[in-house]
Amino acid sequence: MSRYLDLANALGSRIEQGAYNSGARLPSVRELSTEYRVSLTTVQQAYRWLEVAGLAQARPRSGWYVPATLRPSALPSMVSPDPRPVDLSEWGQVQDLLELESASETVQLGRGMPDVETPSLRPLQIALAREGRHAGIPSLHYNDIQGVRALREELARLAVEAGYRLSPDALIVTTGCQEALSCAVRALCAPGDIVAIASPSYHGMMQILKENGLQVFEIPSDPIQGISLEALELALEQWPVKAIQLIPNASNPLGYIMPEHRKLKLLQLAQRFDIPIIEDDIYGDLAYCWPRPHALKALDHEGRVLLCSSFSKTLAPGLRIGWIAPGRYFDKVLRIKFTSSGPTAPLPQIAVAKFLGGGHYPVHLRRMRRQYQRQRDIMSEWVRRYFPSGTRISHPQGGFTLWIELPDACDTLALDPMLREHSIAIAYGTIFSASGKYRNCMRLSHASAFSSRTEWAIQQIGTMLRTIMLANPEDHHA
Amino acid sequence: MSRYLDLANALGSRIEQGAYNSGARLPSVRELSTEYRVSLTTVQQAYRWLEVAGLAQARPRSGWYVPATLRPSALPSMVSPDPRPVDLSEWGQVQDLLELESASETVQLGRGMPDVETPSLRPLQIALAREGRHAGIPSLHYNDIQGVRALREELARLAVEAGYRLSPDALIVTTGCQEALSCAVRALCAPGDIVAIASPSYHGMMQILKENGLQVFEIPSDPIQGISLEALELALEQWPVKAIQLIPNASNPLGYIMPEHRKLKLLQLAQRFDIPIIEDDIYGDLAYCWPRPHALKALDHEGRVLLCSSFSKTLAPGLRIGWIAPGRYFDKVLRIKFTSSGPTAPLPQIAVAKFLGGGHYPVHLRRMRRQYQRQRDIMSEWVRRYFPSGTRISHPQGGFTLWIELPDACDTLALDPMLREHSIAIAYGTIFSASGKYRNCMRLSHASAFSSRTEWAIQQIGTMLRTIMLANPEDHHA
Repeated sequence: MSRYLDLANALGSRIEQGAYNSGARLPSVRELSTEYRVSLTTVQQAYRWLEVAGLAQARPRSGWYVPATLRPSALPSMVSPDPRPVDLSEWGQVQDLLELESASETVQLGRGMPDVETPSLRPLQIALAREGRHAGIPSLHYNDIQGVRALREELARLAVEAGYRLSPDALIVTTGCQEALSCAVRALCAPGDIVAIASPSYHGMMQILKENGLQVFEIPSDPIQGISLEALELALEQWPVKAIQLIPNASNPLGYIMPEHRKLKLLQLAQRFDIPIIEDDIYGDLAYCWPRPHALKALDHEGRVLLCSSFSKTLAPGLRIGWIAPGRYFDKVLRIKFTSSGPTAPLPQIAVAKFLGGGHYPVHLRRMRRQYQRQRDIMSEWVRRYFPSGTRISHPQGGFTLWIELPDACDTLALDPMLREHSIAIAYGTIFSASGKYRNCMRLSHASAFSSRTEWAIQQIGTMLRTIMLANPEDHHA
Repeated sequence: MSRYLDLANALGSRIEQGAYNSGARLPSVRELSTEYRVSLTTVQQAYRWLEVAGLAQARPRSGWYVPATLRPSALPSMVSPDPRPVDLSEWGQVQDLLELESASETVQLGRGMPDVETPSLRPLQIALAREGRHAGIPSLHYNDIQGVRALREELARLAVEAGYRLSPDALIVTTGCQEALSCAVRALCAPGDIVAIASPSYHGMMQILKENGLQVFEIPSDPIQGISLEALELALEQWPVKAIQLIPNASNPLGYIMPEHRKLKLLQLAQRFDIPIIEDDIYGDLAYCWPRPHALKALDHEGRVLLCSSFSKTLAPGLRIGWIAPGRYFDKVLRIKFTSSGPTAPLPQIAVAKFLGGGHYPVHLRRMRRQYQRQRDIMSEWVRRYFPSGTRISHPQGGFTLWIELPDACDTLALDPMLREHSIAIAYGTIFSASGKYRNCMRLSHASAFSSRTEWAIQQIGTMLRTIMLANPEDHHA
């Protein structure tokens, strides 16, 4: 386990919550080493991690300081826990979100779409072209239901970086992470069952749960620490929860990385109540720190965690390559995968295996992590500048989405006609809740390389929000 | 409607059932015109169709004759109807079938895999390479959940040839036909429901039904006329059947094309009992006659038929491009498709749209129809020559699989160790039944260009069968 990450998380939370003033000196390496009973090297590693995350600055021969420009705005608040599981709300808004994509003149801040125009994807395009041209025949065949073996071998190598060991035979390639999650849910649950999910949560996951006739228990989540283990424990004690689903690393939409000790406690809870965990690790390789944080699966020695992931956020969603490491549920998941869509298309798999085997993936990831982190800071700054006072902003530790919480009175759905008129797309907060929460929230994507239109769009949204709030000064429904 | 096809089907059935001797003169064009009250042109069209199907021969200035070489062996028999719906049997054998694929030295007669090494697929490989190289960016994006629009426009054009008109907006591209069928079943049925299916039937479909907790009513099927409408009517009268599923054109595994008047009667039955039909048209474009027979959907004006298809048999399964025209169930199917796997990979879709748009598809189909029909005749001849007496062989009107029925005493599963030893793969009859029927049957694929090893393999299987039958001369369990 990486003790330095635990320390970095603890210290990072304190800094972000304003325990130290901007520009203030942080505890010395020696002080922390004594306080936390860790080696000096571990503290230094933790500080380097915080530096990468923009939460600490080194001053030569002086020590570590809180950056002067540290985000002064408050973090989004945690919702209060629900007393019971809820039925899921409708998918009309999700469908709208997906459809808006097609208009190309739109400033698209809504979808969780990575930057696919980066030059570091060039070797992938070359591999795709070569595969289409030369190695055409095998790529036209049906292949192993589990997926192309060369790709599974590369995935097994990537797993080591996420802290776990896995045989290529224990993996199943899927059509995107969506299919991995869908197979996991169908392997574990029957209609009417209850699933505990982090809240706010990925809308696609909630649509899977709805489609399968499931109820959800929404567990409030802290924008830094992640899912509330206290609320989860309470839910598990009181309800027959069949599975826990969450994104422990660089969560969508909040962007937290659960500290290592909290991951361990989560797994212990799952063991105590004998419940499987569906871990979505799709953003794990986009954590801004390096080496990347461990997957929850790294702590699991019982096959209890079904790890789902894909290259849709790290490389390109159009590849439609995901995978699942379903642990002890392997046979059931394989069968569901086969009956749902047969094998996954081999051509993109072979091309991605070549891209990975050629060593291009770490180069690409390094570039994207930097771009996404830099653009997180820039977009946060714009939001602070242009949005109404009282706006709260998440401080993601990975990925490329910001979660914005506006004053309670502000209904972001009221933006819809104005946003359409200006060809700006955002993701409304309500689609991240099963029960209509987060009307005063939105998620903004900061993936694509910014243009002058990006700042313009944020400014426009700010103006629209002010218009809405002026129109309803007394309206305090959340 | 095409009256000539009706006539050709009726006449073809009579010829195949031995109503005329080999080499005998068939009724004159004028006689048939009077008997069936159709034009002379219609009768001539019907005879040309029969000629293509190998069932009639023109002799200049003399008329039409039964070919001298017409298959003398009997057709497979129809099983007796079941009194009630059944639970589905296990998938172990199906998994075995899929796994055997990987060994490349195997003579693969088991899987429904088209010949992808044909030169007429070259333009597709070029399109795939070009798409990977030049148009890389759009192909890396998420795209419309319904699929790439250019492809849907081409599919709408193909629909016209199958006799129906469809807006590109009424189509959803899926990950192979398997996903189309899976979405259709999930849109129509809940666990415990009963589905009526043709018997014998595609094993992948039965696995979908099993996975979704459904029961099936197996409707006996005639190798020429298709599903028994009498047995179906009886089933619909007595049981709360939720959907009917079948392959009306170039059915897998029997290869029949349901005559037009029987298709109409099937649809009328579905209307009377208000039941939707899941039509699998995956082999429709591989009917040996041209123009191709109409889809059942061509007769449907209520959106009752959910047409499922793919390019897995006509182009290449590795493309993983299927589609569904779900009629009045569109919204539900779209939602299930989205939650199951998200959008389908765009790169192969764009490449196939270019292949179709470039006019390569009819050229390719013409070549493949000829190859598959020629190889059907050759393989039938080998089976007649090498298999035990009493063997019955289907006479498929499209596609690339032969259905072989052996004497009742012969358990084809007993071949398994011997086939493995000789690296020969076949599809055992039992996987085409939900209830363990067809132990004395097998399906042989005649798609790949034959080599000397193909005849050797058929000869080997014949020898093995004789060995089994000699060992159990008294054993008459079916």
